[in-house]
Amino acid sequence: MLTLYFEDLVPGRTFDCGAKTVTEEEIIRFGVEFDPQPFHIDVQAARASPFGGLIASGVHTFAIFTRLLADAVMVDVANLGGAGVNDLRWFAPVRPGDTLHARATILDGTRPSRSRDDRGVVMLRGELHRDDGALIWHATVISVVARRP
Amino acid sequence: MLTLYFEDLVPGRTFDCGAKTVTEEEIIRFGVEFDPQPFHIDVQAARASPFGGLIASGVHTFAIFTRLLADAVMVDVANLGGAGVNDLRWFAPVRPGDTLHARATILDGTRPSRSRDDRGVVMLRGELHRDDGALIWHATVISVVARRP
Repeated sequence: MLTLYFEDLVPGRTFDCGAKTVTEEEIIRFGVEFDPQPFHIDVQAARASPFGGLIASGVHTFAIFTRLLADAVMVDVANLGGAGVNDLRWFAPVRPGDTLHARATILDGTRPSRSRDDRGVVMLRGELHRDDGALIWHATVISVVARRP
Repeated sequence: MLTLYFEDLVPGRTFDCGAKTVTEEEIIRFGVEFDPQPFHIDVQAARASPFGGLIASGVHTFAIFTRLLADAVMVDVANLGGAGVNDLRWFAPVRPGDTLHARATILDGTRPSRSRDDRGVVMLRGELHRDDGALIWHATVISVVARRP
């Protein structure tokens, strides 16, 4: 079933991970469960906030990228687990109706494990762009991936 | 209503943000929506995976911290938005029944904005520890916070 091992995740390889349009209902539901600040959960309060309207929790934006990456890439990867994230940045708020396009690029830091010869460390730059081309979010995601048996 | 401005978020100040016990239902529900890898959504498949059982999505772990921080701290903060996250690390998987204790510490990098005199940049170290004391997760969260009017 798995088709992407460490050897397949070569620096420079890029994956188009499709897109997701975010709804008001999704923004509020995520906010109520995980980030109940007024501008994530209450349309009226959000209008009076510095953001001028409802915006998605930053963790929700990361979760949307994760889902697009999971469906397009991780479902095929011999994944031994996430290690961490560096340089995550939110550049613009995500508002209801925004469509986010995800892309993932394997980075130069990708390397065999120093301690175990059955795995490698994959560094991946994830990005979300809006329909108008604006970069909304990026991060460097570090994962441990099995070598081809 | 707001009681925590930039001036209140002094390096070294620590907030105990309470705890959350994670259930199997929550892990699966988050996984189905945001990270549908087998070891996040399917108990049987998870047993056969490298993790030996169901584990929470890494983004779910970050979301749990965000909720504990929101309830304990952010609800009182004059928050102008998240800027980014550095040095996020997952040290151990989160399994059903684990209780995660959250703590936040204001870091030395906290400083007034260089471009706007009504705000500052707050750097906060977030941590999640398990009941047995093990550090499960940490990250440095960067936020923009208003100065006291």
